[in-house]
Amino acid sequence: MHLGDLDTPSLVIDLDRLRVNAAAMRERCRRLGVRLRPHVKTTKCVDAARIQLDATTGPITVSTLAEARGFAAEGFTDITYAVPAAPSSGPELCRLAGELERLRVDVDHPGTVDALESAARRAGVRLELMLEADCGDHRCGVDPRAATSIELARRIAASPDLDFAGILTHGGQSYRSRQRSDAATVAELERDTMVAFADRLRSAGLEVGEVSVGSTPTVTAAHHFDGVTEVRPGNYVVFDAFQAAIGSCSVDDVACWVVSEVRGVYPQRRQLVVDAGALALSVDPGPRHVDPGCGFGLVCDLETGRPLSGLTVVKLSQEHGLIQADDDVDVSMLAPGDRLRIIPNHSCLAIACHETVHVVEGDRLVERWRPIRGW
Amino acid sequence: MHLGDLDTPSLVIDLDRLRVNAAAMRERCRRLGVRLRPHVKTTKCVDAARIQLDATTGPITVSTLAEARGFAAEGFTDITYAVPAAPSSGPELCRLAGELERLRVDVDHPGTVDALESAARRAGVRLELMLEADCGDHRCGVDPRAATSIELARRIAASPDLDFAGILTHGGQSYRSRQRSDAATVAELERDTMVAFADRLRSAGLEVGEVSVGSTPTVTAAHHFDGVTEVRPGNYVVFDAFQAAIGSCSVDDVACWVVSEVRGVYPQRRQLVVDAGALALSVDPGPRHVDPGCGFGLVCDLETGRPLSGLTVVKLSQEHGLIQADDDVDVSMLAPGDRLRIIPNHSCLAIACHETVHVVEGDRLVERWRPIRGW
Repeated sequence: MHLGDLDTPSLVIDLDRLRVNAAAMRERCRRLGVRLRPHVKTTKCVDAARIQLDATTGPITVSTLAEARGFAAEGFTDITYAVPAAPSSGPELCRLAGELERLRVDVDHPGTVDALESAARRAGVRLELMLEADCGDHRCGVDPRAATSIELARRIAASPDLDFAGILTHGGQSYRSRQRSDAATVAELERDTMVAFADRLRSAGLEVGEVSVGSTPTVTAAHHFDGVTEVRPGNYVVFDAFQAAIGSCSVDDVACWVVSEVRGVYPQRRQLVVDAGALALSVDPGPRHVDPGCGFGLVCDLETGRPLSGLTVVKLSQEHGLIQADDDVDVSMLAPGDRLRIIPNHSCLAIACHETVHVVEGDRLVERWRPIRGW
Repeated sequence: MHLGDLDTPSLVIDLDRLRVNAAAMRERCRRLGVRLRPHVKTTKCVDAARIQLDATTGPITVSTLAEARGFAAEGFTDITYAVPAAPSSGPELCRLAGELERLRVDVDHPGTVDALESAARRAGVRLELMLEADCGDHRCGVDPRAATSIELARRIAASPDLDFAGILTHGGQSYRSRQRSDAATVAELERDTMVAFADRLRSAGLEVGEVSVGSTPTVTAAHHFDGVTEVRPGNYVVFDAFQAAIGSCSVDDVACWVVSEVRGVYPQRRQLVVDAGALALSVDPGPRHVDPGCGFGLVCDLETGRPLSGLTVVKLSQEHGLIQADDDVDVSMLAPGDRLRIIPNHSCLAIACHETVHVVEGDRLVERWRPIRGW
């Protein structure tokens, strides 16, 4: 089966490019002296993670309990759940901790620590907790400069049912970068904040085993990781139009796209409708801060993957993608049934739209993967 | 099982409200003298459609071949596929046409008509085609004033393998309404355009059986449907935050929401993080033209469903929803584990995020439905 034979819309991953991206990040982390704990939320696919880890079974990062369960069932043994846990998830986390060599759980609130401690005590297991800190992204995490943050770490370390495994952050503000040097600045802030936080905790008499940071833009751009023990990028394994726009990669490095078919051609308004809508591409505003006219995905030639200049996905409705052509482009060159490759703005969200990922080598379909969706 | 016991995030549909919405639309269409052919793409659930159709098995509108196959397999016999068909879908459409009492297929391009005609000839079936016209939304459809549009209808009607079943439009510009009266204006334009197009076709000697229009805002707001034979609203069965903002319904009419749990509380920046992110709510910018600060969903009390003023979903990442509180709201009133009801901006997209729809009567879980996802 070949690219041209897939039903559309279909999500495609290019295996060769994914392998190259995976190997490049392993090599980068080896050179920079940090452990790579890839975030598997991007593909949610066990086979992709195996390639990322060079056929080993850990360490990985997950974003949902469904991913934790699914990857554990496939033999992954070292998992960090990097979203602040729900207090009610204690029993399930304890069960998973009993199955795995290592499970680490993200917390940033005393109430959650209390709940997980009670669950651990009842289950007769020790839970390893990572304290999430906010390095400026202002999504999750304790304030690393606050006295209460030291207190929370101390409370975890003092518990007979919990282990204080270390500290964790996500420099998500790196997604506001305009270029690689901006992401390098965020990477340095991310690193610096966490090294300073670790120092403060150590000064307070606490042992800080893990100092975990990372996002694809920061890990791609960072100059060094002194004082950091591990990084958790995820998107790098396939990249997307956003990462290409902010300089984390080139468009050629992107290993993920949607094969879409033209359904309508409207020469008078220089527009096309394709069958990749909001449910196939996901809706992500994209790198508007870099390119206000970026649209909802990058329209490329099906065979070569080269961007087709002058075509912009200006609107997504449920099952329709509306493509606007520039003045000098004649959309009559295309007809219903013609196929386009559309690189999503955000591959993590786009892949999660699909029950099946079609894995190709060149033009040939070689595997089908199933993302572990849901929660 | 009760609302408070569901895993989070979970998609919930309120059965009583859905029944009321379904009955109200049936009654409205009966009064206005048009056939109701609900678009099932909103819930993609067979059980919802059965309620919409008062336990009959048609007519319905679908947006994907997967929906057509799925609903046909469950006994629905009269289906309109209201997205311009792919030329390559001819064989499958012919197979479906052979199974159903009636299948109607949307076309707006001569190349697609040629392909479907060839497929029908090979399969030995007649395919019923609906010619889509553009009434001003500028997504799909032929220009109803163009001579080529009459020619295309004539070409379909003249084919020994095709039936010209009528004309179809979607006044999607109704989503730019600010209030119900704006949608009524679009409804009149939608109706007027199609009645005029039907007249032109009839003057050219063509029989126009069906004149099909509709969107939830226009069907909800229209004063009359003279000259129209059927309407195809979909969203009305559950509504959403967008429809409430533009006046298609009140917030109390909305029958669909996501149950979400607080994971993080950040009093200094007056923010909360909940476990309903982009993969649970879907990303839809919402009714910004009416309410620039609408955010990515309407935060409500779990039990009462009443909107909680001063809380806005300002950002969605993959598994995190970031809620900003107004100056006078103290987020410390909430703690991890507390639950909120979030009404999505766009229920069609939100429901499609979920493998399971949890159907409740009051606080009690009574059924689980499975949307027919994919393509």
